[in-house]
Amino acid sequence: MNHGPIRGVLAPVVTPFDEHLEPDVARLAGHCRWLLDGGCHGLAVFGTTSEANSLSVDERIALLDGLVAAGIDPQRLVVGVGCCALTDTARLAAHAVDAGCAAVLMLPPFYYKDVSAEGLFRAIAQTIERVGRDKLRICLYHIPPVAQVGFSIELTGRLIHEFPGIVTGMKDSSGDWNHTREVIDTFPGFDVFSGNELSLLANLRHGGAGCITATANVNPGPVRVLFDRRDGPDAKALQRQVAATRTIIAEYPVIAALKAIIADYSSDEAWCRVRPPLVDLSDAGRESLLASLSRQGFDMPGIRRAQAP
Amino acid sequence: MNHGPIRGVLAPVVTPFDEHLEPDVARLAGHCRWLLDGGCHGLAVFGTTSEANSLSVDERIALLDGLVAAGIDPQRLVVGVGCCALTDTARLAAHAVDAGCAAVLMLPPFYYKDVSAEGLFRAIAQTIERVGRDKLRICLYHIPPVAQVGFSIELTGRLIHEFPGIVTGMKDSSGDWNHTREVIDTFPGFDVFSGNELSLLANLRHGGAGCITATANVNPGPVRVLFDRRDGPDAKALQRQVAATRTIIAEYPVIAALKAIIADYSSDEAWCRVRPPLVDLSDAGRESLLASLSRQGFDMPGIRRAQAP
Repeated sequence: MNHGPIRGVLAPVVTPFDEHLEPDVARLAGHCRWLLDGGCHGLAVFGTTSEANSLSVDERIALLDGLVAAGIDPQRLVVGVGCCALTDTARLAAHAVDAGCAAVLMLPPFYYKDVSAEGLFRAIAQTIERVGRDKLRICLYHIPPVAQVGFSIELTGRLIHEFPGIVTGMKDSSGDWNHTREVIDTFPGFDVFSGNELSLLANLRHGGAGCITATANVNPGPVRVLFDRRDGPDAKALQRQVAATRTIIAEYPVIAALKAIIADYSSDEAWCRVRPPLVDLSDAGRESLLASLSRQGFDMPGIRRAQAP
Repeated sequence: MNHGPIRGVLAPVVTPFDEHLEPDVARLAGHCRWLLDGGCHGLAVFGTTSEANSLSVDERIALLDGLVAAGIDPQRLVVGVGCCALTDTARLAAHAVDAGCAAVLMLPPFYYKDVSAEGLFRAIAQTIERVGRDKLRICLYHIPPVAQVGFSIELTGRLIHEFPGIVTGMKDSSGDWNHTREVIDTFPGFDVFSGNELSLLANLRHGGAGCITATANVNPGPVRVLFDRRDGPDAKALQRQVAATRTIIAEYPVIAALKAIIADYSSDEAWCRVRPPLVDLSDAGRESLLASLSRQGFDMPGIRRAQAP
């Protein structure tokens, strides 16, 4: 099996909002540049961390076009496209392919629960048919803790078999390394990304493709260093270090926490905004989070310069 | 508190698809007419049974406009508008108000799980603000078995208090009559619909507003008779009768089963189609379902004439 177009460390980029809660493409482009300069191999725009499902399809298309217009290389982008309606998913995916993006990250349709594997297969197959573009590359997005609906091993195998060269990978956000390992073992050559960096070293040593991790939004450098030195003598120490940072952040609602960290380190309070149903961190929560990170020696080098309006 | 615009028996109308899996407005309008002629006080278009979340916002807007153009009275329509993105929900709701529809049925944003009551309040409040129309009437859609996210008693009270005359009712599809009763008891004058007809008599005798029930798609007459004779001597027998029909259908995947029944009684196989991730009934399942209904004396009077192309 051929590998997909991107491997390594990817950030599911957080989406900034203006004072009217509209997506802010200028701030988003600035953050994307900082992440690419700071070590990310690629960017997963419009993932769960991006509040993508709190954006309409039109809003996502406008943001994607804005990023490309702002000079972000579409070949570094994996675009989240999974919606409840396959017509929405197909429209977004076609747009991403036409914009020259490397791949799409595809949730299964997630409104109905307890749907059959046959029904999920038909949804993805119908979506691929509607996209109708040879350059489509799909990274399946398995995140049962949020979407509730996921891709079983059997369904994944059927999709890989039916759509070789199109279904090329999976982001496994099950939170269970044993599951990730099973996917890697079952499908050699399939690009399996861990959903966070806690198992990055294990993922890479086991033949995985890397990680797509929320905390890369604020900590891309150290995660990249771990990737680069995965075979070196300090790999385990580097893994412990990035895990320690993540563990601090994961004590808080992660999306709001990441935005609070970016706001603080870039001195740009606009970054704090989230769209409902999410809520921003309380002042006390924010102070406590930032104090914990500071004690750990955390930093975001260059972020203030990068985010300057 | 003032009641909302519609009470009684409502069908969450199933959505027919053509051979390309595109929504079929002509068949939908025919079915709506049959339902209104057959006893429904109103129609909840774009509910869970309607596969609404398998339709894009544009598809839903086109269908709604098509129904009104086909002569369906918008004052008999309660329009499902709840999406993951509040911008989508607001756009659909504004369109429904401008089309003259009686009310909207609003899911909470349902992608993120375990969100706070404050976050859900902000989502609904922000949606109402974006709609910005005095004629907006909202029936909250509480269906935790599917959406996972719901409206707690406390959140419901806050919404009623903050938006009097706008948040006028709830469809309670918790499947738990004790919960429905608690909502009725806690908010006098609030229009509480049961999510099915199994508890319709209890709902009405307890001061509820009626029911919005999937099976009204095929059995509107008997459910309406129960509503009309709720204080009569045969009310309990009528309740048992509609429950028996529902119980047969509920042994199958309900949406596919309803469509198979309509297809059979109207001699129009096009009705069988569902959009993935749903799947249609197997031939064996369909035969068994129809045989059970036939043994029970089930009928859909006039459906063949109503559905004729």
